[in-house]
Amino acid sequence: MRTLLVAVATFLLPTFITAQSQPQLNLMPMPASVQPGAGQLLITQSFSVAVTRGHDASLDEEVQRFQAQLARQTGIPFRPKAGAAATLQIHADHGRQAVQKLGEDESYELTITDSGANLTAPTSLGIIHGLQTFLQLVEITPTGFAAPAVIIKDQPRFLWRGTMIDVSRHFIPIDVLKRNLDGMAAVKLNVLHWHLSDDQGFRVESKVFPKLTGMGSDGMFYTQNEIRDLIAYAHDRGIRVMPEFDIPGHSRSWFLGYPELSSGSGPYTLERGGPGYVDPVMDPTRESTYKFLEKFIAEMAKLFPDAYFHIGGDEVNGKQWDANPKIQAFIQAHGMKNNQDLQAYFNQRLQKIVAKNHKIMVGWDEILHPDLPKTIIVQSWRGQASLAAAAKQGYSGLLSFGYYLDLMWPAARHYAVDPMADAAANLTPEEQSRILGGESCQWAEWVTPENIDSHIWPRNAAIAERLWSPQNVTDVPSMYARMNAVSLNLEFLGLTHRSARLRMLHRMAGTADITALRNLADVVEPVKDYERWDDAKGPIDFHAPLTRMIDAVYPESDVARHFNDLVQTFIQSGYKDQPTEMQIRSQLTTWRDNDARLHPLLTQTFLLQEDLPLSQSLSAVGQAGLQALDYLDKGQTPPDSWKTQQIAVIAQAKTRQADMLLMVAAPVQQLVEMSAASHN
Amino acid sequence: MRTLLVAVATFLLPTFITAQSQPQLNLMPMPASVQPGAGQLLITQSFSVAVTRGHDASLDEEVQRFQAQLARQTGIPFRPKAGAAATLQIHADHGRQAVQKLGEDESYELTITDSGANLTAPTSLGIIHGLQTFLQLVEITPTGFAAPAVIIKDQPRFLWRGTMIDVSRHFIPIDVLKRNLDGMAAVKLNVLHWHLSDDQGFRVESKVFPKLTGMGSDGMFYTQNEIRDLIAYAHDRGIRVMPEFDIPGHSRSWFLGYPELSSGSGPYTLERGGPGYVDPVMDPTRESTYKFLEKFIAEMAKLFPDAYFHIGGDEVNGKQWDANPKIQAFIQAHGMKNNQDLQAYFNQRLQKIVAKNHKIMVGWDEILHPDLPKTIIVQSWRGQASLAAAAKQGYSGLLSFGYYLDLMWPAARHYAVDPMADAAANLTPEEQSRILGGESCQWAEWVTPENIDSHIWPRNAAIAERLWSPQNVTDVPSMYARMNAVSLNLEFLGLTHRSARLRMLHRMAGTADITALRNLADVVEPVKDYERWDDAKGPIDFHAPLTRMIDAVYPESDVARHFNDLVQTFIQSGYKDQPTEMQIRSQLTTWRDNDARLHPLLTQTFLLQEDLPLSQSLSAVGQAGLQALDYLDKGQTPPDSWKTQQIAVIAQAKTRQADMLLMVAAPVQQLVEMSAASHN
Repeated sequence: MRTLLVAVATFLLPTFITAQSQPQLNLMPMPASVQPGAGQLLITQSFSVAVTRGHDASLDEEVQRFQAQLARQTGIPFRPKAGAAATLQIHADHGRQAVQKLGEDESYELTITDSGANLTAPTSLGIIHGLQTFLQLVEITPTGFAAPAVIIKDQPRFLWRGTMIDVSRHFIPIDVLKRNLDGMAAVKLNVLHWHLSDDQGFRVESKVFPKLTGMGSDGMFYTQNEIRDLIAYAHDRGIRVMPEFDIPGHSRSWFLGYPELSSGSGPYTLERGGPGYVDPVMDPTRESTYKFLEKFIAEMAKLFPDAYFHIGGDEVNGKQWDANPKIQAFIQAHGMKNNQDLQAYFNQRLQKIVAKNHKIMVGWDEILHPDLPKTIIVQSWRGQASLAAAAKQGYSGLLSFGYYLDLMWPAARHYAVDPMADAAANLTPEEQSRILGGESCQWAEWVTPENIDSHIWPRNAAIAERLWSPQNVTDVPSMYARMNAVSLNLEFLGLTHRSARLRMLHRMAGTADITALRNLADVVEPVKDYERWDDAKGPIDFHAPLTRMIDAVYPESDVARHFNDLVQTFIQSGYKDQPTEMQIRSQLTTWRDNDARLHPLLTQTFLLQEDLPLSQSLSAVGQAGLQALDYLDKGQTPPDSWKTQQIAVIAQAKTRQADMLLMVAAPVQQLVEMSAASHN
Repeated sequence: MRTLLVAVATFLLPTFITAQSQPQLNLMPMPASVQPGAGQLLITQSFSVAVTRGHDASLDEEVQRFQAQLARQTGIPFRPKAGAAATLQIHADHGRQAVQKLGEDESYELTITDSGANLTAPTSLGIIHGLQTFLQLVEITPTGFAAPAVIIKDQPRFLWRGTMIDVSRHFIPIDVLKRNLDGMAAVKLNVLHWHLSDDQGFRVESKVFPKLTGMGSDGMFYTQNEIRDLIAYAHDRGIRVMPEFDIPGHSRSWFLGYPELSSGSGPYTLERGGPGYVDPVMDPTRESTYKFLEKFIAEMAKLFPDAYFHIGGDEVNGKQWDANPKIQAFIQAHGMKNNQDLQAYFNQRLQKIVAKNHKIMVGWDEILHPDLPKTIIVQSWRGQASLAAAAKQGYSGLLSFGYYLDLMWPAARHYAVDPMADAAANLTPEEQSRILGGESCQWAEWVTPENIDSHIWPRNAAIAERLWSPQNVTDVPSMYARMNAVSLNLEFLGLTHRSARLRMLHRMAGTADITALRNLADVVEPVKDYERWDDAKGPIDFHAPLTRMIDAVYPESDVARHFNDLVQTFIQSGYKDQPTEMQIRSQLTTWRDNDARLHPLLTQTFLLQEDLPLSQSLSAVGQAGLQALDYLDKGQTPPDSWKTQQIAVIAQAKTRQADMLLMVAAPVQQLVEMSAASHN
């Protein structure tokens, strides 16, 4: 299959017309080819869709969903006129596979003129994607809702474009997953990688081993019917569902019901943090372990129809193996050198079980070992080098390093990560063809059903573009503009990545008026990477409420980014751009005055008290920025004492406060430094 | 039943402790008796509930719903400790009726101390209400979420506390009704009056007469299963569901499938506005009409278990009767004087059919006629006099005059309407006992599933308080403060009365940043009463999108009300209250500068172009107010020409623009007049 796909990609490459050469359309991911036309297609109440030939029943449902979303976006209750020609004509040459296959044709062509639209595709999978493109094209204009005239020819750059969602550390209910699947479909992602078991909970009903959820889930798990329903929901939207059962490590939740699987001595409780929390690991030396896994995987292989089966395999620290004399004896008896060899032995046994059930085994990059067959797939999370190394050795791979949404990076940082860059850039074409795509990852230490959407969206759209669009689509300002447009449509789809923040701020405040609180929340971001894991505060309590300001704010502050842009524009103008200075002053004034308005509220609620210093910092930064502008305007050199004092204030403002960062401190520091330097 | 209820009310009256004498708790409706205690009950993760005795299974579900809502409000994932005593102990002496009865005991007692809470009630209906009170008591404090120590003894003033929702003019789906039932339960309303048929659509599946929806619903109707599901949902929340089938007028939708019922000649189409739209009316002279109604009512009486059955009866204009010689002959032959007598004849026949199906007939006040038995119930919509008149004649009645939510009145105006005031105040106690309560009414000319919540909430809570709380609970500032607190909780319940506005504004703008647009939307209200029905614009198109700014804004502007309060405070201080003046200036400055920010956006989208003059008016008003304050501050008398000009500007600003009213024009006019007068 991979050889065929390379041929297709090579054939299509010369026809790419890149996004940068086109006027901006709010499309994300940017299609492979966009040719603008003249005029626009007005979307009126008589808008209608016809599927002309070759369609399957699921396509009719897709069209209904499309029309419902178009109605939500535009507020138009559609009333097609009987007998009139359909506005949008759809034709798919073929239906789809009952179980979506990797590499199934996803291409489509969409032509819009001022009198109608045509969407054609080899399979109905392409139609699904093309309809999402149409939805993104519809915008409000001076004359009505309209889609611009355009010819789009589109297909994905990578065949595997996924999002991993961890539902073990915090359980995420089916309805929340469904709205996220809607979001994934909107940006043409095609794999939900469902991280279903970990130390903190086992989330899938097993009829063969009922104690897995009976003792290992705190009562929070999916029934098999719910899983089948979710898989069907995803399939309708062109999304495969790959399950992950993380073994032999990250498996503490299995051991509550089945302690005989473990390498240590029980009894076990579900992981609540604390020392040694990742130590429990399966015992690969007992035949009973494999008998258990044979039965379990046979059951799960039937439940999950996807061809791929993820076995985890990450972060086995080996402590229980080191501490268990029988296991050490097994290692010696079998001529193994170390625990890595033991895990490779486990993975070999596991791979045979997975293959016996007609599945292809996928695992995190720790599973890479020459003893494993080349059919497995390696998911790289520790760096791009391991992806390239796997490809060199003949293994197919997926990139997730650089796509961890839980690290709270700005979208631009994820966007800059390309599966074919760095070490992969030096691979041969054949080796490169083994890089199937990538997956964003939403690990669930710090999310609940309430705030998970805002941790995934809209940043996930930028990663989706990286995986779908031509490699040279890299313009960051364009990305942000288009991501913000898509973000609005995602809320109309039902995602709550914007609206949940206001609800959470209202909860913290206990009041209807949260203007001042929002001013503060607008300019902060959570600390990055694993900075929130503060060992001094003790282990993470996975059952504690996540209701602090850090839990409500966006991972990336649009307001701060926009303010920073203004400051750069102002500096580049030689402090002469007066309209920009007025905007900067207006913003700084709001911040300077904000603490006086916000302070009383912060003292009144236990959830906001920790934010008092942060609020004071924002006002101090606002004050410093305004004074700096005054000096610049007057052409005066400020006293050194003033500069020293302001830099100290800003240094304080830049420190982590209530686990958040004040993102406007740095540009204000620039203003202060410029004002002090400009006349020396 | 009525005699008993009077006795209960009289017995309880002396124990009332009114709201005004108590420190403010954010309760709505205010309970009959509130005795504050010392301390507070902290709501922690170990919060738990126990139902001790006498409970029915539905009560367990109610407790689960209560806990889910408490978790949404607080963001706390509850984890009760095994074996620990429950935080909240619940005891109901008895279960409930399978079909909720008018007058079923709804009282409860709730005692909260710093160590726990007790909720007791004669029936589980009281428990349902008491749990809602508990939810309202929980607030965020400096030490955590907590309910204050308190002893509450509560029961309703009126037994019938309803909300009528019209689902004919615009169809409202089941899920939207369900979230509104949640809202009704939160404020202890106990009747959903479901206006199911009208000229614009017939919304209930009839198996006996399938053409009612087959031809008269545009495909938008409820199946009988959906109706049973909704009734069960309402019952779980202590809410009766009374159906209304409006006849003999407002019945055009019946005639598409069954033209033989009508007094005129068909063929009929569903009402889309236009001349004569209310003319079609049933033919009361044919026996076949009654045969039809006998079968239909028998079917519906089984589907709707409530003891009351609403037959409408309003606004029969008689034109078709006048124009039909056979009907005129019938009137003469039966010795009737006029069309009113004919409708009374129809109602008498109808009442016998309704009674045969063991239901009590309810109708709008036009049905009041001495020929009808005293068992019927009259719902007064044309004035309080008709309610009193009915009571005097021995008829029971409900008040809806003054409670029409679709008229866009401020909450305070609804709140001031009391069923026992005006003509009813002069009734004898026995006559007064016939006034069972009232119903708010949401007629659906201008609502969609998207914006209906904001037309009903939070103002409906003020009406709910009028119908539940002691008559002397009338303090308007207290009402607004409590209504705003309840409004937050309603959003946590799932209502979208606040969040939908932002979504709609984003749609109109097509952009992520709607700050300036929101500034404008914050200070306008829709035109009042029936002013939006502009005959010059032609008939209402019930299928047109409702996506203009008037459709998004709140019926009542909190910002404008608050601004008006500030201006009154400032004036009363003799223009000396500087902090208040600063707040006024800050607001006026935002408005003055807003049009410059907003104007470009307004020109870019067809939905906002009509708001250009309104935006200019807001800036002009801001400018006028700031200048007036300058004159006041300097102690200068402005030139007459200035005053004349400003008053003209404000007069323009006060006119209807894009079907909206700028609610801050009047207080700014005050400032202008004061500044001009103060030194003359």
